[in-house]
Amino acid sequence: MAIITLTTDFGLKDPSTGAVKGAILSELDTANIVDISHLVAPFHITEAAYIIKNTYSSFPKGTIHIIGVDSEITPENKHIAVQLDDHFFICANNGIMSLIASEIKPQKIVEINIHDTVETNFPVLDIFVKVACHISRGGTLEVIGRSISEIKQLKDFTPIVNQEQNQIIGHVVYIDNYGNVVTNISRKLFENERKGRDFKISARTVSLTKIYENYSNAINFTIPKEERREDDGKKLAIFNSSNFIELAIYKSNPSTVGSASTLFGLKLKDTINIKFY
Amino acid sequence: MAIITLTTDFGLKDPSTGAVKGAILSELDTANIVDISHLVAPFHITEAAYIIKNTYSSFPKGTIHIIGVDSEITPENKHIAVQLDDHFFICANNGIMSLIASEIKPQKIVEINIHDTVETNFPVLDIFVKVACHISRGGTLEVIGRSISEIKQLKDFTPIVNQEQNQIIGHVVYIDNYGNVVTNISRKLFENERKGRDFKISARTVSLTKIYENYSNAINFTIPKEERREDDGKKLAIFNSSNFIELAIYKSNPSTVGSASTLFGLKLKDTINIKFY
Amino acid sequence: MAIITLTTDFGLKDPSTGAVKGAILSELDTANIVDISHLVAPFHITEAAYIIKNTYSSFPKGTIHIIGVDSEITPENKHIAVQLDDHFFICANNGIMSLIASEIKPQKIVEINIHDTVETNFPVLDIFVKVACHISRGGTLEVIGRSISEIKQLKDFTPIVNQEQNQIIGHVVYIDNYGNVVTNISRKLFENERKGRDFKISARTVSLTKIYENYSNAINFTIPKEERREDDGKKLAIFNSSNFIELAIYKSNPSTVGSASTLFGLKLKDTINIKFY
Repeated sequence: MAIITLTTDFGLKDPSTGAVKGAILSELDTANIVDISHLVAPFHITEAAYIIKNTYSSFPKGTIHIIGVDSEITPENKHIAVQLDDHFFICANNGIMSLIASEIKPQKIVEINIHDTVETNFPVLDIFVKVACHISRGGTLEVIGRSISEIKQLKDFTPIVNQEQNQIIGHVVYIDNYGNVVTNISRKLFENERKGRDFKISARTVSLTKIYENYSNAINFTIPKEERREDDGKKLAIFNSSNFIELAIYKSNPSTVGSASTLFGLKLKDTINIKFY
Repeated sequence: MAIITLTTDFGLKDPSTGAVKGAILSELDTANIVDISHLVAPFHITEAAYIIKNTYSSFPKGTIHIIGVDSEITPENKHIAVQLDDHFFICANNGIMSLIASEIKPQKIVEINIHDTVETNFPVLDIFVKVACHISRGGTLEVIGRSISEIKQLKDFTPIVNQEQNQIIGHVVYIDNYGNVVTNISRKLFENERKGRDFKISARTVSLTKIYENYSNAINFTIPKEERREDDGKKLAIFNSSNFIELAIYKSNPSTVGSASTLFGLKLKDTINIKFY
Repeated sequence: MAIITLTTDFGLKDPSTGAVKGAILSELDTANIVDISHLVAPFHITEAAYIIKNTYSSFPKGTIHIIGVDSEITPENKHIAVQLDDHFFICANNGIMSLIASEIKPQKIVEINIHDTVETNFPVLDIFVKVACHISRGGTLEVIGRSISEIKQLKDFTPIVNQEQNQIIGHVVYIDNYGNVVTNISRKLFENERKGRDFKISARTVSLTKIYENYSNAINFTIPKEERREDDGKKLAIFNSSNFIELAIYKSNPSTVGSASTLFGLKLKDTINIKFY
């Protein structure tokens, strides 16, 4: 059973997503359609890329991922289908694939050319569904597009190491449902630069000198619960499940007690500093 | 595999939708349940009708659509099952089907009579699921209801053409996830009345004299990107994917830069005026 | 086809849910994954328990329910798999199962011991998925854990009957999508204590002397619609579909006309008083 995932900025109310699902099932009644997220901020390519990058590889090889974000075809943004890591991605060539493919070279890229003279203002429905169903029936990319060698590059934030090699300057790349703040500083980069030294992470109002392996490692469970002072609400840094540094509040709730994002005053793209001593 | 779609005002947190899905799978473990939308505003029949009308026909013929909006049975609103355009709809006879069926005559309408003496305050779970599973097993409507010839009519906003035939007065019928404003003026009505004349669309603070075929047609891509003044944020009208006139902002984001709805000051039911010269 | 349900506090935007679905399908490509809710308030165990308790039994026997709320393993909260009412539940032993199992004794409880030395900060992905797929392939609980006889108890609000037996004191346990206020006073408790007497329900600003079988029973349909004064907006109490007393507003909309919660000033855990005369 072919798996087709959907990541869009359609929201969860409009008819768009329902129409796309119906169109897929009309072509391929055994398709297994999986919603990844429809709450990407409108036209927010880097957010969509973050979500897909942290999701796609959990799916079986051969899964087809439709990305419905900023997907109108324009003279500047053609439609592409990309095979990467044995997964298939269908999207506009607006730079999003360069973010997803930042560490893995695509196996194949085609510029989709099944548009003919179709004027469409809903390409996910009119084009991407057709391409997805074609691929899931075992069709090759060459049938629905012409091979190209380059995708549009989008400059992503990448962490910088200073000349003295005693500092990493990274950025906030995502704020999650708990208000935790995900940075673009990977465990690998951090360990490479650290070289056994002590360190201090600084970001606006917060400064931390330890990175935990998971949230609850920050809590001292040898002290009886009633006597622990800093439990819920403790500020901490962890290596998250994608192995990036994340600044968090233990058991935060953005709509009640606040979260790392609100309490530390950190927003998307803000700077995170790690100094080594 | 029978497809059963769900359109409700249950929201996305409450147990209601999960319970309905469980009940369907308990009766019919191969059912393919597809969420269309659960974010219909509470009891908002016209919004639900808009969403279903713009979705259902993408699904394969024979699909069963459960509509859980204002679905309590009352002396005024019985439950009905309707076959229309080879799709099946199960809902309360509260007028919603008259909006969905405004252009297509139903093939069959039955008033559901499997209630016996069951008092239920969750008819989607207790009644609609049973009817949906009955239909998806190939059962006829006559078995679960008695044939009726009329459904409750709800007066929908329809655009008016003035006596001089130089003006169309329409209304806002939906505001989408991007804050774009959908009107009830169809391309067909517009072209019929236009008769080659120039025109001006006016709605509160906005006035436009051109309708594009899609969003990006409004952008002049022959000018290099850096030199284009009006890109993101450009006000425009398009024929949307359902062939109705939509007022939009190019690449709007309601929660940051604003949207057509907020920038033009347009709300549901507001008047849209098209004058021909 | 194995059914695996998901109830989490992951929200609907983050990659977490997509990653979990992908991991399930990678292990078991025929799994039928059903979202119950991802909008549980962060770490809100009682809310998650309420949602699952009112959902799970609609599903077929044998369904596997993954609960991704407060699921980090700690010295205080191990992971458990529980068979109850012929359903399977996988969660942290944080007290949530004691709320779900408050009326039904579990058939089997195991403390999951497949962690080995895996340090994980995403146990739903790394542990719960494996356990769910094991169970859905027909594996026994004993293979993935060691049998235990007790689960962590969490004290739930239970209604109190006063000494004079003329009063029930209950609490608000959930506020639904319509802003209706669900109490923990069951029809059974109410009828047992009532003994045919008159009664008055009091809660902050509201007081009611009748409980309807469903919402529309509160409306007098023998009066023509135009002449009915109290329709939409009528304050009422009903026995809800789970047979608990619910305080409601007829056809309320929290974001426009207000709801029982806002109009009565009632929040989670607030007191509900029923006095018998």
